[in-house]
Amino acid sequence: METIRIFSPATVANVGCGFDVLGFCLDKVGDEMVVKKTQRKGIFITKIEGFELPYDVYENVAGVSALAMYAVLDVEFGFEIEIYKQIKPGSGIGSSAASAVGSVFGMNYLLGNPFSKIELIKFAMKGEAIASKSEHADNIAPAVLGGFTLVKQSNPLEVIQLPSPDALHAVIVHPQIEIKTADSRAVLPEYITLTDAISQWSNVGSLVHALHTSDYNLMGKSLIDVVIEPHRSKLIPNFNSLRKISLENGALGCSISGSGPSIFSLCKGLENAKKVEANQRAFMANTNIHFETHVSIINKEGIKILS
Amino acid sequence: METIRIFSPATVANVGCGFDVLGFCLDKVGDEMVVKKTQRKGIFITKIEGFELPYDVYENVAGVSALAMYAVLDVEFGFEIEIYKQIKPGSGIGSSAASAVGSVFGMNYLLGNPFSKIELIKFAMKGEAIASKSEHADNIAPAVLGGFTLVKQSNPLEVIQLPSPDALHAVIVHPQIEIKTADSRAVLPEYITLTDAISQWSNVGSLVHALHTSDYNLMGKSLIDVVIEPHRSKLIPNFNSLRKISLENGALGCSISGSGPSIFSLCKGLENAKKVEANQRAFMANTNIHFETHVSIINKEGIKILS
Repeated sequence: METIRIFSPATVANVGCGFDVLGFCLDKVGDEMVVKKTQRKGIFITKIEGFELPYDVYENVAGVSALAMYAVLDVEFGFEIEIYKQIKPGSGIGSSAASAVGSVFGMNYLLGNPFSKIELIKFAMKGEAIASKSEHADNIAPAVLGGFTLVKQSNPLEVIQLPSPDALHAVIVHPQIEIKTADSRAVLPEYITLTDAISQWSNVGSLVHALHTSDYNLMGKSLIDVVIEPHRSKLIPNFNSLRKISLENGALGCSISGSGPSIFSLCKGLENAKKVEANQRAFMANTNIHFETHVSIINKEGIKILS
Repeated sequence: METIRIFSPATVANVGCGFDVLGFCLDKVGDEMVVKKTQRKGIFITKIEGFELPYDVYENVAGVSALAMYAVLDVEFGFEIEIYKQIKPGSGIGSSAASAVGSVFGMNYLLGNPFSKIELIKFAMKGEAIASKSEHADNIAPAVLGGFTLVKQSNPLEVIQLPSPDALHAVIVHPQIEIKTADSRAVLPEYITLTDAISQWSNVGSLVHALHTSDYNLMGKSLIDVVIEPHRSKLIPNFNSLRKISLENGALGCSISGSGPSIFSLCKGLENAKKVEANQRAFMANTNIHFETHVSIINKEGIKILS
C-alpha cells in the first residue's frame, strides 16, 4: 500500500464541566486527507482544498505532527500529504486536531502500524501546539480513539476511554464569527472560587458515572460548566438564546464546544437532536450571522481509513 | 418490634481528590445505638457510653436528626436513644455522621420504614449541621448507603452510589491530637488556581472511572489532592511521613480522612493493608502521640441492624 485516504473527525473538547480534560468524537463532520509514500525523503504538503492553510510543513499542523513522527523514523522515503479541509479553522470543533491527527495516522498505516494510538496522540500534540500554543490532547485524544475521552494528564500523557451510550447524539451550531485566540484565553480566570471548583469536579465525577451507567437524566444534570462558560460565552453572540432553545427543546445539556464559537448540545435520540437543530436553525436564520449546523452520533471509532 | 440495636459505621469523606463530594463507608469501625419506642411523646437520649456527649437532644447530633424526623411524624409515642460511642468525636472518620444517622435509621425501622434512604440522609444532615456548622452529606451518604458515594449536590440533595471494587481495603491511622474546627476551616483557600482545579476534576473523573472498571492502578494515580491536602496536612504532625510509609509499602493512595487528623490509605487486598498498617504503627510508636489504627474492607451495606 502506497497511498491511503482517511477521514479525520471533528471533535468537541471540554464537554461543559470538563474543561481541558473531556472530549468526544463526531461522525461524518471531518476532514479527508490523502497520505502517499514518495521516493523523495521528507514531508511534503502537496494539496490543500477547502480552506486556505500554509503549505510550509513547519507552519501547517499536519506538517508539524508528520515531522515529529518522521524524525524518529529511519526510512529512505518520504510522505506527501493532501488535505481536503471540511472543518473550518477556528470553528471550535477540533479543526487543527483533525489535521494533526490525519497525517500521522496515515503515515503509521503506510508503515505497517508501528506506533500505538497513544504514540500517535503524542505526535499529533506537536502539531496542535503550533495552532494553540500549548500541547493539548483534549481534541486529539477523541479524534484518535473515538467516543468520549478523559485526558488525565498531558505530561506524561495519560488518556482514559470512557463509555459512549448509544442513544447520545450531538448537535453543533457554528455561528461563523471569529473569536481571536488571544481573547478566548484572556477571559479565562487564573483563580476560581473553591465553591465553583467543587461544583465542577462534582459534575465531572457524575458525568463519568452517567456515561458508565447510560443514565441520560444524570448526564443532563452534569453537563453544567460554572467555571469557563460564564466567561467565554460573552464572546459568542446569542449564546444564551441558543442554549435556552436547546434545553427547552429537550437537549440533555448545551455548552461551548472547545473555545467556541461552536456550541454543542447532547441529546437522547436522533429525533430530539433534529428538533433541537431545527429550532436553533430557525433562531439563527433571524440573525444576520452566517451559520452551519450538524447532527451527529458519537463516533466510537475515531479516525478511519476510507480507501 | 419496640427496640432495635444498630451498627452505625465510620466513614471517610473527601477521599483525596473529591473534597466535599466523595466518601466511603468502613466496616466494623462504628458506633452501636439502641432505639426504643416509648409511651411518652418526644425524643430522649437515655444513655451515652464511650465518650462524653450532651444528653440534651437539641445539642446532640443524634437528638437533632431524630427531632427533624419526629417533627414530620404524627404519632402518639416517642423514642429513646442509647448511644454506645466507639468513634471518637473529632477523629475525622465521621463520628457525628454516625450518630446523626443512627437515630433516624433506628426510628425509621421501628416505624416500618416509611422514609427512603435519601430522606434519612436529609434528616441526618440536620444533626450533622450542629457539629459541622453546615449541612454536609459527605459522611452521612456513605454511612446510610454503604460503599463509595458522590454527593452531587446538597440542595436539592442528589447522591450517587459508585461501585466499590471487592479487593479494596482501607487503613486508618488516627493520631489522637485535637484539630480545632476553626483551624481546619481557616486553612481552606477561598480561591484556587484554575490549573489546580483542572488537576482535581481530572482526578475525580478518573477515580470514578477506575471504580467502575476495578482499575486499581488508575485508582492510585487518581487519589491525589492538590487543593486541600497541602493546607490541612500542616495541621497533622507526621502526615508526610505517614503518607510516605503508606505509599512505599504499596498502598494505592493515602490522604487526609475528612478534615483529619485521621489519615486513610486505600490498598488492594487485606495483606497489603495489614503491611501498611504495621509500618505506620511502627512509626507512630516512636512518636509520643497516642494513636489508633483500623483495617477495614469497604462496607457495601452501610448502617445495619444488629438485633
